[in-house]
Amino acid sequence: MSNERLIYLPLGGAGEIGMNAYVYGYGKPGKERLILVDLGVTFPDMDGTPGVDLILPDIQWLIERKDQLEAVIVTHGHEDHIGAIAHYYGQLGAPIYARAFTANLARRKMTDQGHSEQAVKTVSAWPEVVECGPFTVGFVPISHSIPESSGLVIDTPNGRLVHSGDFKMDRDPIVGEAFDEDLWRSLAEPGVLALMCDSTNVFNPHPGRSESEIGGEIEGLVAGATGMVVATTFASNVARVKTLAEAGARAGRSVCLLGRAMRRMIEASIETGVLTDFPKTISPEDVTAMPRSNVMLIVTGSQGERRAASAQLANGKYRGITLKDGDTFLFSSKTIPGNERGVIRIINSYSEMGVDVVDDSSGKYHVSGHANRPDLSALHEMIQPTYVVPMHGEHRHLREHVKLSQSNGFKGVLAVNGTMVELSEDKAGIVDYVETGRTYLDGTVKIGALDGVVRDRIRMALNGHVMVNVILDEDDEPLGEPWCEVKGLAEEGASRAPLVDVLEEDLSQFIGRAGNKTLLDDDKLEEGLRRVVRNTTQAEIGKRPEVTVIISRLSA
Amino acid sequence: MSNERLIYLPLGGAGEIGMNAYVYGYGKPGKERLILVDLGVTFPDMDGTPGVDLILPDIQWLIERKDQLEAVIVTHGHEDHIGAIAHYYGQLGAPIYARAFTANLARRKMTDQGHSEQAVKTVSAWPEVVECGPFTVGFVPISHSIPESSGLVIDTPNGRLVHSGDFKMDRDPIVGEAFDEDLWRSLAEPGVLALMCDSTNVFNPHPGRSESEIGGEIEGLVAGATGMVVATTFASNVARVKTLAEAGARAGRSVCLLGRAMRRMIEASIETGVLTDFPKTISPEDVTAMPRSNVMLIVTGSQGERRAASAQLANGKYRGITLKDGDTFLFSSKTIPGNERGVIRIINSYSEMGVDVVDDSSGKYHVSGHANRPDLSALHEMIQPTYVVPMHGEHRHLREHVKLSQSNGFKGVLAVNGTMVELSEDKAGIVDYVETGRTYLDGTVKIGALDGVVRDRIRMALNGHVMVNVILDEDDEPLGEPWCEVKGLAEEGASRAPLVDVLEEDLSQFIGRAGNKTLLDDDKLEEGLRRVVRNTTQAEIGKRPEVTVIISRLSA
Repeated sequence: MSNERLIYLPLGGAGEIGMNAYVYGYGKPGKERLILVDLGVTFPDMDGTPGVDLILPDIQWLIERKDQLEAVIVTHGHEDHIGAIAHYYGQLGAPIYARAFTANLARRKMTDQGHSEQAVKTVSAWPEVVECGPFTVGFVPISHSIPESSGLVIDTPNGRLVHSGDFKMDRDPIVGEAFDEDLWRSLAEPGVLALMCDSTNVFNPHPGRSESEIGGEIEGLVAGATGMVVATTFASNVARVKTLAEAGARAGRSVCLLGRAMRRMIEASIETGVLTDFPKTISPEDVTAMPRSNVMLIVTGSQGERRAASAQLANGKYRGITLKDGDTFLFSSKTIPGNERGVIRIINSYSEMGVDVVDDSSGKYHVSGHANRPDLSALHEMIQPTYVVPMHGEHRHLREHVKLSQSNGFKGVLAVNGTMVELSEDKAGIVDYVETGRTYLDGTVKIGALDGVVRDRIRMALNGHVMVNVILDEDDEPLGEPWCEVKGLAEEGASRAPLVDVLEEDLSQFIGRAGNKTLLDDDKLEEGLRRVVRNTTQAEIGKRPEVTVIISRLSA
Repeated sequence: MSNERLIYLPLGGAGEIGMNAYVYGYGKPGKERLILVDLGVTFPDMDGTPGVDLILPDIQWLIERKDQLEAVIVTHGHEDHIGAIAHYYGQLGAPIYARAFTANLARRKMTDQGHSEQAVKTVSAWPEVVECGPFTVGFVPISHSIPESSGLVIDTPNGRLVHSGDFKMDRDPIVGEAFDEDLWRSLAEPGVLALMCDSTNVFNPHPGRSESEIGGEIEGLVAGATGMVVATTFASNVARVKTLAEAGARAGRSVCLLGRAMRRMIEASIETGVLTDFPKTISPEDVTAMPRSNVMLIVTGSQGERRAASAQLANGKYRGITLKDGDTFLFSSKTIPGNERGVIRIINSYSEMGVDVVDDSSGKYHVSGHANRPDLSALHEMIQPTYVVPMHGEHRHLREHVKLSQSNGFKGVLAVNGTMVELSEDKAGIVDYVETGRTYLDGTVKIGALDGVVRDRIRMALNGHVMVNVILDEDDEPLGEPWCEVKGLAEEGASRAPLVDVLEEDLSQFIGRAGNKTLLDDDKLEEGLRRVVRNTTQAEIGKRPEVTVIISRLSA
């Protein structure tokens, strides 16, 4: 007994926003029985991950220990918590537990990737629990910006853990369960060893606002609009979609949902019973036949995503619908850092059409789904844990949350991805560091972030690419002139002659001067040709490109 | 006389933030004498302009009319107003007019590009004026976030124009001239035909704040810090740099400037007399020899630029200096949309070092250099122009500013880049549309934004690049097998064999099956090989790469 231990090991989500993946283990060191809480993704960008389709946490550590894994627990249906489950199911194989709505989304993901839905098990809310080896796990309803979010109560031989999941303290969340303070206080009664806690909004000093506070504002905006009204928010924010739709309906407008994610999410919500009384919707075809002032569109693309409905409408016609002068477009959403350029591009396109764009800068049309600083303190106080272990945040968030915990009188534990922490009443100590990182889903294959594949792409994008082709005959003598192709470089530089011609001339001279020592040695020849290309390109256009040299030897 | 006209033609900066370039002309249609106000740049990003060094406005229209150009007038020294003067001097050749501080910066730029400093003429402030053909131009001091900013009074045969330049209404700007309401009112006395007006902050409903309001806050922050204090702001915000340095000096700290731009800008300010009483500075070597609590660094890199001092310090050591636990880093700046990721990366690096980062979220340590909405209205009211022509802004800003002008009782004119507007008391009418856009400085050469060069780079970054090499002998028979090189693609896919091997195998089969009709026709052969590569890569790894095919014919 004494040589068994309880461990906590974030593999994703601690030290970054996104791709959450938290391991808990109990047992003899190295033989712990494990559960994984959440298995999310994050999204690529042109800066660091051009061409990549999805970014998954690197969970190699867990894959190597799949025999120790009892279960994958999913707290809620946001992509940064559920997005990787189907991509890793083949390598993990453990059953997936979630509440009904989340399980519905999980099953769609499994089917999309060709796995059986059967691996996904539906669990009812606390006090129902699931036994996972040494752990007893209960799903406790908590408010967030998607239905049926759950915090977890994880009972272990070392004591109770509370894993907040993403949460806010919303007493009137429109859709889904309200934050129930009495319930959360009751969880603390047996004593809580550690609270693993959302850190996203730790820098926001204001008390959180309820989803219900913005309904009136949105209703006023829609009621006062004259042309067509279009609103966007995250499709998964079902409460917001409902608020928007009801504002439309109350203003006598017919509601049309645009964008695949939007329709799927509302479907799932109705199927699982989390959404009731949603106004009747009409099709895009119906929209085109109605007066503009009788229509409200609710569309995908609040982050300016290029293929989403908002961007398509900004480009012109989408599903037969065109916006025009006098229409109103509402961003009922916050722009996630990094997405500003895409959102601004859309806003300017609408401006050119004469559409009035309303964003969240007034604070009237959006509230966050995460607990702000005072609410984090309130949860600490309700749970009274021995340790507060911040999660869901970049390093700066975790560090600030540790400071906050300590100022609230609780021991804060700073554990970023890869830090294995042993937890007991006596100590919370780091016992190991595990290699973590990112895995890229690139097309249909997974590649390591450090494989160099994406690095090569970035280099081609920054520097351009020159390909050199040299043929040597059976006697290792050059056959014809070297041949050059260029991609992503200016056609002409200092010499006012085509860059390709200048390059071929210089390469030809190099080959002509090269002795047998160079011509017989592929490496030397390649190195020499590469150097000529770089020097010539630098002199001609001031850039040092990527170079690929292809040497063909007819003798070979 | 009656067939002469006054025209306004923005070539950059109207419909975008950055690369300002505004043409004014007077004369017979097509033969107007011209002046250009400002000639700025904007900065590239990985999303749309990977590898590009600078983005310049496409001023081909003006280059073709260089004989009509009387002068280039520069309102102030920010890169988006002055950055392109030296890059286009060779093609325009007109003299460049600016006030002393701006002229000092302009001369450095000219020298850097190998031009003579002599082309830059220094002009004193209004009431001194410059005659430029039919125009009389005066530089009227106006407050902004760089010394010696000027609005322009442009007297024309059709009446007076006022060109605001970038401005705010700061009655106590710390460095440089205060906003002088009486002076601006006096300019309006003869009547003003049109006010060309900054639109940057038109969406900000709050009255602007003075530079002097934040000195006390910054002083309090520095005085309360225990370790080293590091602050960053734009180097050109000389007033802010002075405020920061004085806060350091008052707290008994020695001040060290880090980063080339920071040192250059302070040098230029002292040389031209705009900056006096700047605290004595110490070198980085001195810093390493002093107790941390006695030092204040003022560094470049407020936007998270990778090579700036702030980023270098975040990476570890810079000029012998390393930050550590207990130090404080202050962003006395706003993050420009699009730069968030870089800034956040630095903040997290500092967080890992234990450095406390203070940003502008409280509003206490930064004020904007642009007039907010109420101040724009105030300028309208002071100038009483017949027309307000918004500039310096994206489409959404210009449109909003037109609405604001109209609600203030003035006629607003929406003119984006390329819109030639004829202006007289009777009418402000669009008389032509001119092709405009962006020119990229790429290495040492200029390339058109639509040349396809950067598009090719982006495609290689998104899709990877496959090169295929086929040799055909004198009888047009394949000599050996096709050869394949791959860059930026996963090494292995569905077949669990190297992608290159699978490609070469499929290409070989294609060549084997190809008849003479294909083998004799370079285009057909290339098309066929390309198709094989795309299909195989799609099947293996789910991507469709860029393909370059090199066919070598020994007969040729």
